[in-house]
Amino acid sequence: MNNKLTLKLVGSVLTVEAILLLLPTLVSLVERNGDWKYLLLTAAIVAVVGFAMSRLRPENENLRAREGFAVVTLSWILLSFFGGLPFFFSGQIPSLVDCFFETVSGFTSTGATILTNVESLGRGMAFWRSFTHWAGGMGVLVMSLAIIPKMGPRAIHLMRAESPGPSTDKLVPRLGRTAQILYWLYIGLSVLMVISLLVLGMTPYDALIHTFGAAGTGGFSNYNASIAAFNSPAIEVVIGIFMALFGVNFSIYYYLVHRNWRGIKSNSEVKVYLVILFGAVAIITLNILPLYGNQIGTALRNAFFQVSSIMTTTGYATADFDVWPQLSRTLLVGIMLVGACAGSTGGGMKVIRAQLLVKSMVREIRRTIHPRTVNNVKLDGRTVDEGVISGVYGFFFAYIFVLILSTLIISLDGFSFETNVTAVIATLSNIGPGLGAVGPTGNFAGFSILSKLVLSLCMLIGRLEIFPILMLFMPDAWRKM
Amino acid sequence: MNNKLTLKLVGSVLTVEAILLLLPTLVSLVERNGDWKYLLLTAAIVAVVGFAMSRLRPENENLRAREGFAVVTLSWILLSFFGGLPFFFSGQIPSLVDCFFETVSGFTSTGATILTNVESLGRGMAFWRSFTHWAGGMGVLVMSLAIIPKMGPRAIHLMRAESPGPSTDKLVPRLGRTAQILYWLYIGLSVLMVISLLVLGMTPYDALIHTFGAAGTGGFSNYNASIAAFNSPAIEVVIGIFMALFGVNFSIYYYLVHRNWRGIKSNSEVKVYLVILFGAVAIITLNILPLYGNQIGTALRNAFFQVSSIMTTTGYATADFDVWPQLSRTLLVGIMLVGACAGSTGGGMKVIRAQLLVKSMVREIRRTIHPRTVNNVKLDGRTVDEGVISGVYGFFFAYIFVLILSTLIISLDGFSFETNVTAVIATLSNIGPGLGAVGPTGNFAGFSILSKLVLSLCMLIGRLEIFPILMLFMPDAWRKM
Repeated sequence: MNNKLTLKLVGSVLTVEAILLLLPTLVSLVERNGDWKYLLLTAAIVAVVGFAMSRLRPENENLRAREGFAVVTLSWILLSFFGGLPFFFSGQIPSLVDCFFETVSGFTSTGATILTNVESLGRGMAFWRSFTHWAGGMGVLVMSLAIIPKMGPRAIHLMRAESPGPSTDKLVPRLGRTAQILYWLYIGLSVLMVISLLVLGMTPYDALIHTFGAAGTGGFSNYNASIAAFNSPAIEVVIGIFMALFGVNFSIYYYLVHRNWRGIKSNSEVKVYLVILFGAVAIITLNILPLYGNQIGTALRNAFFQVSSIMTTTGYATADFDVWPQLSRTLLVGIMLVGACAGSTGGGMKVIRAQLLVKSMVREIRRTIHPRTVNNVKLDGRTVDEGVISGVYGFFFAYIFVLILSTLIISLDGFSFETNVTAVIATLSNIGPGLGAVGPTGNFAGFSILSKLVLSLCMLIGRLEIFPILMLFMPDAWRKM
Repeated sequence: MNNKLTLKLVGSVLTVEAILLLLPTLVSLVERNGDWKYLLLTAAIVAVVGFAMSRLRPENENLRAREGFAVVTLSWILLSFFGGLPFFFSGQIPSLVDCFFETVSGFTSTGATILTNVESLGRGMAFWRSFTHWAGGMGVLVMSLAIIPKMGPRAIHLMRAESPGPSTDKLVPRLGRTAQILYWLYIGLSVLMVISLLVLGMTPYDALIHTFGAAGTGGFSNYNASIAAFNSPAIEVVIGIFMALFGVNFSIYYYLVHRNWRGIKSNSEVKVYLVILFGAVAIITLNILPLYGNQIGTALRNAFFQVSSIMTTTGYATADFDVWPQLSRTLLVGIMLVGACAGSTGGGMKVIRAQLLVKSMVREIRRTIHPRTVNNVKLDGRTVDEGVISGVYGFFFAYIFVLILSTLIISLDGFSFETNVTAVIATLSNIGPGLGAVGPTGNFAGFSILSKLVLSLCMLIGRLEIFPILMLFMPDAWRKM
């Protein structure tokens, strides 16, 4: 491992965080609340640490895959640690572990919280907390790539480690330009959402907070009742639609802007995503109909919002789905596992992986019928490389492996089986709420320090798609060059 | 599909069932209870149907893989259907679906029951119910291979479909002889167990019943309290040890008889099996210590029996592990997923598959560090074929896929998430009891007809290792030759 190069690049990313911290500082000053002091102090600390690290002079600037992964992993851990300091300095979250958990949850756009009363946060802090969703959703390193010029072509290793999905498309040959395009699309959709919410009567502050939460598919709100606090079916429907939009592969929007209809049509992932989304909405609507006095409109709206929120791994709620019938609850756990599209801001295993897993399974079944025939797995008309399939299988097993191991550790706290399993799925898939004690009306405050650290790790493992983190547990990775 | 050949072979297997039914008939006569009439009637029906089918004359006797799988699957379904008739004829289980469920549970050596009062069964019926465990444990078709001479070398397709594990070892070149050796080892160990139980004071009837249950890793008892009914620590320990022995790959015993120490030493699966078994016993002993008044002996005995029972997928109980602390309960679910060794009578995913999955995952992690290095997965000093690994991955995903789909369907009944998930795991891994309503003191009686059929299918899918059953859902399999 080239440690100096790794630390130098992490330093550059931290300086970006220092800049990011200035936005909530400004908001706090505008809102005339006292949070700006702690935010500015943290910005100064991060700037100094980041600048010092970025002045390192490695003998060799050759960025290999392993350094790429290490940069991403270390960046995310340090971003979350430093990003949690304002909560700690201000005393609004007294425990450092809780500060870390909350900020990991923010950057990984999970939305799981240890706060029992979200409304007690100062307006500067609440803004920062939600802003981490927006920054983390598309990727802080992708942002750095877009901002910092000339990281070189090998920076693909950085983008690959941070971008969700089994393969990273470069939209245009130059990587920095791809990052910029992605961010412009992200900003464009976000602005559209802010305007829509303002039109529906939200305050600018609330509109920004909930746009950050939906765009990053995070789920933090500044109200204890989440989106239900607005008590507005129109706002519900609009946020529901925007969540679904942010769960789509962003290359679709790029194609849309360039009127590349063939590019859109050949993407089967989005089709499958929509089929699962609306299939689940239909089943759940029928299942919860009696709960809503057989009013199909209300049931449909509630089903759509909750499914959109869970499938995109956002985690906003307008209904307590923990009290829904067992079929609906279980179906929600199922779509938790699938998650959103690759190349979106959403988490989970990703629809494209589910497609490849099902197709490979069908191939294995075919093999029992025709043992001697060679079958290739095809997707969107192209043969999928066996290395990709084996990677997806490895990913799937690693996901279940981490799920079982983490559930075992947090079961020491004595919560129910349902709470433990869904708490791990909700963090590993970056969703936020699960069932039982961590349901939409619950929170993660009751877990022990050990469990909070394990669940924080789960959020990072899920956001960085498992291998970059697991890599750090391998002795090979640490060997000197 | 060569339908005539398939039906003809299924017919031969059914004639073997007719012979099997004579044993409980005899026991019923000796015990002077009235069950023999229904058992004999069923034997006659099965004999006629089986004989008629076995008289079919296919144009082509070429047994391909697909016919092999179809023979095994159809045999198991019909064996279970006909095997359930005595319960129905006698009125001791009034519903045909329940009769089917109970007999599938018997032959697949699951041990899940719909009976709320096991002790209400007649002694002939109880004997038959337990005997299905013994017959199904090693495989009814393997038994047929051992009995019926000259099925030809291509019968390997039959044995492969019914024998657990990713690959089938022929102990000796001739297949029929391998089947015979396996059955002699099985009979030998069973006789040893019966003698041990007789020495400890069990009646011959009870000793046979519980040997059938342990040898087949099934778990049916003729007492509502299962093994706890004997209230004898010695019996507990002996049954615990025998269950663990029946969870070992039988080739180990073959090597043992032939003093082939190298064969034993090179088998890492058994080592991993024992490490998991005793690791789980150690953790659970510490975890449940306070429940047993800090008496380490009692806690250890209870932990060992329950872990041995669950890991070998037997399902006998001497303690209600459903009331154990959450860590122990969750750990038991974890080892439910792993299961016993390949080539044993135990179910579950099998230790060797878990080994291959972990090794392949480590390889994928290595690939992120050294993207250009080719890594082979090695087991017991040999490179594992990529086809085997892809088969294991496919198996694992299919297992989870069936688990999620089945949990969704049975969640219509409204039981808890925990009950539903563990009911499916307990049937899919052929264990028997799960947690919650299907815990060691519960049963499957409360499920709807739909759920009982789904769970019956799960038991068959698990016992035949998924693909033979899933194959039947593919249109390809049904195409004419």
